[in-house]
Amino acid sequence: MASLRTSLINGSFDQTISAVDRGFSYGDGVFRTMKIKGGQPISWPFHYQKLVADCAAIGIVCPSAELLMSDMQQLFPINEFDDEQVQVVKIIITRGEGERGYAPPAVTIPTRVLIKSNMPSYADAHYTQGVRLHICDTRLALQPKLAGIKHLNRLENVLARMEWRDESVFDGLMLDQNDHVIECTMSNIFARVGQTLYTPDLSQCGVAGITRQHILGLENLLGLTAHVATISLQELLNADEVIICNSLYGAFQVAAIGDQTWKQQSLASTIRNILTHG
Amino acid sequence: MASLRTSLINGSFDQTISAVDRGFSYGDGVFRTMKIKGGQPISWPFHYQKLVADCAAIGIVCPSAELLMSDMQQLFPINEFDDEQVQVVKIIITRGEGERGYAPPAVTIPTRVLIKSNMPSYADAHYTQGVRLHICDTRLALQPKLAGIKHLNRLENVLARMEWRDESVFDGLMLDQNDHVIECTMSNIFARVGQTLYTPDLSQCGVAGITRQHILGLENLLGLTAHVATISLQELLNADEVIICNSLYGAFQVAAIGDQTWKQQSLASTIRNILTHG
Repeated sequence: MASLRTSLINGSFDQTISAVDRGFSYGDGVFRTMKIKGGQPISWPFHYQKLVADCAAIGIVCPSAELLMSDMQQLFPINEFDDEQVQVVKIIITRGEGERGYAPPAVTIPTRVLIKSNMPSYADAHYTQGVRLHICDTRLALQPKLAGIKHLNRLENVLARMEWRDESVFDGLMLDQNDHVIECTMSNIFARVGQTLYTPDLSQCGVAGITRQHILGLENLLGLTAHVATISLQELLNADEVIICNSLYGAFQVAAIGDQTWKQQSLASTIRNILTHG
Repeated sequence: MASLRTSLINGSFDQTISAVDRGFSYGDGVFRTMKIKGGQPISWPFHYQKLVADCAAIGIVCPSAELLMSDMQQLFPINEFDDEQVQVVKIIITRGEGERGYAPPAVTIPTRVLIKSNMPSYADAHYTQGVRLHICDTRLALQPKLAGIKHLNRLENVLARMEWRDESVFDGLMLDQNDHVIECTMSNIFARVGQTLYTPDLSQCGVAGITRQHILGLENLLGLTAHVATISLQELLNADEVIICNSLYGAFQVAAIGDQTWKQQSLASTIRNILTHG
């Protein structure tokens, strides 16, 4: 499916990984997805910091930033891209190959996989009118040992994403087993109530993305107070404004969740401007 | 790591899978591990039935039994094995390759991976004296949509298995978030109290193995009443006899869990005899 020279495995152009890689056997690894512009990864220091933290959380020693940057230079040779071309790289780090059984080998060499893809094209209406969310029936299980980590055990997201085929739905809202709002299948979420910006507590489940972290640091620029909080579905639906975010599209206003709709407002576009232009 | 002709990918001898296989990207698949004796898979009808059910639970159409049997005949050519040689095959079925994103492609062709390995060698003392269990700190999250399924999202088992290195510990006891006993990292568990055999309810988490299912059907042969129940750690520690089971070793008595010890009894060896000789 991947064409030639679109993926790099442990520093070599290749399209396959070992069938006994623990990333395949157990989902024993982590990943990131980020934009590449003019051959350079956007917000790389934040992505790398998160990659290191996520690896450490499951006991993997993350490859060095230098090694991964060298991989990216191979995959996105600078002379092949003009300054404005935006592409996407997914970086996967696994614990490496292993014999049968859950115990990691005494010595493991992490596997690093970089996959290049085109930037998804988002409808103009997503920018001008906002997006619709489906409320997923699939609940996120509470697992504090894995909460916040972007690991390879993503069956909950897959099952949630399989709940709708309606192309007018952009993403699916995911609640946890206690019916608290957590995230969307591929996005984090924020709710503005007056001058306060709330985002769900991710200490029990969910993925703590770097765009969420970035937005939490924009209080002064946005003129809002930001809080990490426990949020019920009703509280979300009662919010003055709801936005979602990830590293690819930045931020979109939520125009509708089920029957609840919101008029067009400016927070998402303000955040997109800040994320793009600093 | 795997040597030549020890793994079969979609019917061909190969040691690698696509880096964009959803089994690798998301753990989007299921697996089974079973014994092969004289080239024939042991308890194949039960394993295949479970494979079909696990695939269906996450919306994958399982390859036919004929196709998988044909794979096994390639991997274990009958003239290469004497009647008594026991080996192990791991069968992995994934949703197949996919583009970036959680939504499965409109048409997916499941990937089938068969990996051959040697039968683990178990210490004589495991048979004659029983085994020791570590009580894992890692708790199983409650996820009814994935409970019972042997899927590829196994980070909880990996983290649990990383908790001990003491080679005298055979397996780790796993509790759920409510501190109920569920299973071991690679085994199911039973507790005998008088003439009743209890095994944990797996409707919220855990893997429902076929040996567990088999043992639940042995009430008459064992002269015991079998019940699926909610079991606390204290109830397990107070049991008259505790055994663990899986498809490779059959059943072992538990001789010790932490400080609690049990004298040698006959249930595990009786079950091993029945499982081996019918």
